[in-house]
Amino acid sequence: MRPVNVGIIGLGTVGASVAKMILTHGEDYKRYYGLDIRLVAAAALDDTAVKELGIEDVFTFDGNDVIDNPDVDVVVELIGGTGIAKKFVLKALNAGKHVVTANKAIMASCGQEILETAKANGVSIMYGASVGGGIPIIGPLKRSLDCNEISDVMGIVNGTTNYMLTRMSDDGMDYGAALKEAQEKGFAEFNPAGDVEGLDAANKIAILASIAFHSRVTIDDVYVEGITKIEPIDLDVARDMGYCIKLLAIARRTENGIDVRVHPTMLPLSHPLAGVNGVFNAIYVVGDFVGETMFFGQGAGGGAAASAVMGDLLEIARMLNEGFHETRWCECIDEIPILPIDELESEYYLRIQVEDRPGVFAKIAEIFAKDDISFRSVNQRETIGDLASITVLTHITKESAIRSALDKIVATGMLAADPMLIRISR
Amino acid sequence: MRPVNVGIIGLGTVGASVAKMILTHGEDYKRYYGLDIRLVAAAALDDTAVKELGIEDVFTFDGNDVIDNPDVDVVVELIGGTGIAKKFVLKALNAGKHVVTANKAIMASCGQEILETAKANGVSIMYGASVGGGIPIIGPLKRSLDCNEISDVMGIVNGTTNYMLTRMSDDGMDYGAALKEAQEKGFAEFNPAGDVEGLDAANKIAILASIAFHSRVTIDDVYVEGITKIEPIDLDVARDMGYCIKLLAIARRTENGIDVRVHPTMLPLSHPLAGVNGVFNAIYVVGDFVGETMFFGQGAGGGAAASAVMGDLLEIARMLNEGFHETRWCECIDEIPILPIDELESEYYLRIQVEDRPGVFAKIAEIFAKDDISFRSVNQRETIGDLASITVLTHITKESAIRSALDKIVATGMLAADPMLIRISR
Repeated sequence: MRPVNVGIIGLGTVGASVAKMILTHGEDYKRYYGLDIRLVAAAALDDTAVKELGIEDVFTFDGNDVIDNPDVDVVVELIGGTGIAKKFVLKALNAGKHVVTANKAIMASCGQEILETAKANGVSIMYGASVGGGIPIIGPLKRSLDCNEISDVMGIVNGTTNYMLTRMSDDGMDYGAALKEAQEKGFAEFNPAGDVEGLDAANKIAILASIAFHSRVTIDDVYVEGITKIEPIDLDVARDMGYCIKLLAIARRTENGIDVRVHPTMLPLSHPLAGVNGVFNAIYVVGDFVGETMFFGQGAGGGAAASAVMGDLLEIARMLNEGFHETRWCECIDEIPILPIDELESEYYLRIQVEDRPGVFAKIAEIFAKDDISFRSVNQRETIGDLASITVLTHITKESAIRSALDKIVATGMLAADPMLIRISR
Repeated sequence: MRPVNVGIIGLGTVGASVAKMILTHGEDYKRYYGLDIRLVAAAALDDTAVKELGIEDVFTFDGNDVIDNPDVDVVVELIGGTGIAKKFVLKALNAGKHVVTANKAIMASCGQEILETAKANGVSIMYGASVGGGIPIIGPLKRSLDCNEISDVMGIVNGTTNYMLTRMSDDGMDYGAALKEAQEKGFAEFNPAGDVEGLDAANKIAILASIAFHSRVTIDDVYVEGITKIEPIDLDVARDMGYCIKLLAIARRTENGIDVRVHPTMLPLSHPLAGVNGVFNAIYVVGDFVGETMFFGQGAGGGAAASAVMGDLLEIARMLNEGFHETRWCECIDEIPILPIDELESEYYLRIQVEDRPGVFAKIAEIFAKDDISFRSVNQRETIGDLASITVLTHITKESAIRSALDKIVATGMLAADPMLIRISR
């Protein structure tokens, strides 16, 4: 049994959990799988976790020491971001080390470069923890489901926003209160922009889409809207109609290209994703032979992410143990165009606030009619003072058409507040 | 690109779908993965599917022809059952062929023999389609999640019974009507015993438990009860209390051994498995680092099962292509005892029918009190004629205790019908 020597860069929640997992389960891996995983180096700017883990003897403040250590077979990068983390990953690959990372940002922005560098050096790069925390999703997409033509990948892949939307929906909280509570519970960061504005989810769907469609999708290809404008009334209306509102990351293979986007979405309560609440994540995948599948679990937290990292580490350890080599790097063989958001065809939910006086509604209806947009339902929900909230559900229409109509309505000056537009999915 | 030659034995729904998948996606597998999968032999007793698939040139009526064909690298066994199927699988392994099977019965009854035969011959045996149809569950358990100590595996792994229970619960059908409809829709077989009596689910949980706990669990170790005695009133009571009733396949690691069983179970509506309705399957897995996960999808149907078979075929094709060998056979290293059902500790739902006269209830309550069984709630639900239905929820108690009390109650002669006992899970 040849030992497989691991070096970790980054000892935050995830890094410390990976170290703990090696220390806790090392003997199990030997016994069950004949794999001898050893932690031989660990680097972090902050050594708080080091003493508790009892890994003083392998600790260093400099990540370069981990990569330069000739004993290290596999470098685990858990710093995150596209700065120093990217440098470390490329340096490790170029030094002939295998790499495991949880870094969604580098995989979504420069996945091709990373995968090609790994290939050039004949080493493995694995990133199972970059999407969905501990949920096995990249593994099944690259293995069990890889025999299908995948048509849809739809995910609740950001726990912070799902927690907030769940609280707003179930307990009538407004956005600010939900964010405050999420921050107090440690589910949202002090600067929550990356989560609430949808960027975190966009990174993740870029990664999943690239794997599912065998065509490179980067973060820049993803249309993104966050949840910052959602109000309790939208959640109420949704529920009354048998829908919920989720921040969905969506990737679909269409005749005209890859439709990839992140935005609040109305989803029927009967959809498998509709029951995924709180900080949980889930990814729904449709393949031509397998049909509908869904993968559910804890999308965040040190233990869950450490499980995904460790699963990757065991895969690499098996290869090293058996003396065979990684053969799967970039499999984005196709070059499918990205569908512009204007080309999207969807049903829409629209909420506008107007003065409650005769003629206003007729004017709005006329604008929609001229743009050939037909309604599935129209409701005047409530009148507060002299303002009326009107909610409209459209039949399927083009994004460009609904946006054009909306611009015309805004231009009339009749709206008392910005309109709210939410796409509806099935 | 060395071709990987496949021979299929059994051309029913699944076999025909596997053949179709190779014919449909063969070029994709070449392009994306560099894998050249070819169907070079196919055997079945019935050649109905052969013409439609256009595979007359590789067809034979004798499964032995497939195994004896020197061109065949991988034999796909899709006959099912423990008779001729087992002979074919062992013969293929002993002939040095890799084997992919969807056969839950042989894996659950003689998995060890099959895995050891594969090991002795240095060939792969893969059985991803044996549990959960197309849902990737065996793959993730053996890879991504294999770094965890798994404490719980709980599944809705039989689509027939889940469809029936869904109809009984949502639409008030009785057992007979639900079964009739399931048969008419092709979800239940003419002889439904294997499904409704829980044997199908028992085979599947034996397989999952063996993988999850690294200790051999066979079909004979599984305590089994089917759904044949469930009545609409049980589903009504359950829903009123915030529960559903599912035929659950449960495997838990306890201090005293492996608790493995299949029976109707009351599950809180908030549980991830509670929303899994109709013919869908789902498997819920808890690991010490990953926490809660769930895998959802179509548990039956030719396409779904074919996807699982094909996923396994691609794995084997990758190994053959790269010239490395399977190294994972039986990993049941531990020998954990099986917990007898009498040792189970659970909450229970009990429904009894008694004559509606004074003293009857007091007598029953006295028997429970003497056996130290305490109630969480008691309800007299309805009186039809002079018969009253009493439902009881107990606090956690031992299975042996509740059974002993029940025997005493039956012995009083006060019951108008067999009592109904359902275990409650959290």
